[in-house]
Amino acid sequence: MLIKKINELREYIRPYKANNETLGLVPTMGALHNGHLSLIKAAKEKCDRVVVSVFVNPIQFGPNEDYNKYPRTLKADYELCMKNGVDAVFSPSPEEMYGAGFILSNDNLTYVCPPYNFTDKLCGKSRVGHFDGVCTVVNKLFNIVQPDFAFFGEKDAQQLIIIKKMVKDLNIPIEIIGCPIVRETGGLALSSRNKYLSENGKKEALLLSKILQNIKKCYKQGIINVDLLKETAFSFLNNNVELEYLEIYDSDTLEEKQEADDNSRAFIACRVEGVRLIDNIKLGE
Amino acid sequence: MLIKKINELREYIRPYKANNETLGLVPTMGALHNGHLSLIKAAKEKCDRVVVSVFVNPIQFGPNEDYNKYPRTLKADYELCMKNGVDAVFSPSPEEMYGAGFILSNDNLTYVCPPYNFTDKLCGKSRVGHFDGVCTVVNKLFNIVQPDFAFFGEKDAQQLIIIKKMVKDLNIPIEIIGCPIVRETGGLALSSRNKYLSENGKKEALLLSKILQNIKKCYKQGIINVDLLKETAFSFLNNNVELEYLEIYDSDTLEEKQEADDNSRAFIACRVEGVRLIDNIKLGE
Repeated sequence: MLIKKINELREYIRPYKANNETLGLVPTMGALHNGHLSLIKAAKEKCDRVVVSVFVNPIQFGPNEDYNKYPRTLKADYELCMKNGVDAVFSPSPEEMYGAGFILSNDNLTYVCPPYNFTDKLCGKSRVGHFDGVCTVVNKLFNIVQPDFAFFGEKDAQQLIIIKKMVKDLNIPIEIIGCPIVRETGGLALSSRNKYLSENGKKEALLLSKILQNIKKCYKQGIINVDLLKETAFSFLNNNVELEYLEIYDSDTLEEKQEADDNSRAFIACRVEGVRLIDNIKLGE
Repeated sequence: MLIKKINELREYIRPYKANNETLGLVPTMGALHNGHLSLIKAAKEKCDRVVVSVFVNPIQFGPNEDYNKYPRTLKADYELCMKNGVDAVFSPSPEEMYGAGFILSNDNLTYVCPPYNFTDKLCGKSRVGHFDGVCTVVNKLFNIVQPDFAFFGEKDAQQLIIIKKMVKDLNIPIEIIGCPIVRETGGLALSSRNKYLSENGKKEALLLSKILQNIKKCYKQGIINVDLLKETAFSFLNNNVELEYLEIYDSDTLEEKQEADDNSRAFIACRVEGVRLIDNIKLGE
């Protein structure tokens, strides 16, 4: 079932809720890959009914980002969902979500704004307002679908942490399930943005997971000083990869520590062929 | 039933919802008066079950405002609610709502932020961040109670307009019901802050409603130029009343117009004996 209107989705869901069936939501921006598929599978296992939303959310893109260029493959996404037992794909237009003639600005839209302590670092530092856009659209989707569970990938770890924080702060009656990163054979974390990369770029991009794996290895060998752990990355870097950040923070609070522990997580962002890629790894797993 | 814990309230409500009973929420800061009572009555008429929340919300007060001084009369509030058929009074502590050791800052709390076009005027101009605090706590209460209807007084007209905007923008599945201002015989709009006034102060405070009534009279007589309508207030003012604002805006969008129409609303805020009082009137009713 492909649904484009908010009211139609609500009508579609109503009998399931009346029947006390559990409902899972997998919010996506489409261009679905095996990472998304793992979310869908987790949702199918846990819930009676599964809704996948496919919506490239304009308000989470900055003015110089890839909103227009972002891959849109709704037909393939829909078929993949149907083949994997999804009950409904919700794919609204920007106008359906934000009103006709909407202007992307906090002059005229109510925003849900996660706290600075969670957004003034990592992706939030270069993508100002990004997580306000994410939390706002996720909050809207939560209110539209009213699921029991919502599934997010750990690839976007900061997003997952911020959404868990939003749910706690606003008492949203939904359980957030984080699902492990899915990687290609070489280690590259799956991402819809990998489509922008050439074959050679994909090889260069292996650097991200190699740096993270090496940090984890060093941590397991007993190095806990965060600066030392970060320094182990230098030998991997080359001119084809532009490092945006490499940080080690607490997995739940994103707090900075001088010494890593099992709950620490290493986060990396790089540009390869102009494409911004991110990855992360928990040190204590 | 007096309930102080979020989880207890959710447990209390669960069977009503399972039974498809409609649920009304009347969010208040306590110090209940006949204005609140009119909200409770409207809720009782429309809903099978009614929850009144009594919570003086710290994050909607500025550093120099009356958070500590704000009247707290829970015992009387509770009795009034029980006498008027309320099913449950929800009165959480600040710690229950914001966590132990919470600090009032957007460094560490997810906020719901209404748009600037609705907050950069009237009360929002002098009370910076006030409506962020209001929307955040109302959003939390909505997620905790999940009512079908929520009732707000038109006395706080800007608040009512902003909450309706929030509900629309975030697709919150709750219908907002605005209820008319309740006034004392002389015309003074009921407010918990009237308790701060002396007998003489109460007389001086009649000015607010007199100015508004006169503006409405002039509008009905054919004056539609907004500047002219506002100027009619000058003859009423005296040294015992400090005017903060007097504005005429659209009742739904708070847009400024040069010419008033039936959907215009006059808003006034004054200080009397240091007490900040507000009132408003729709011109076309």
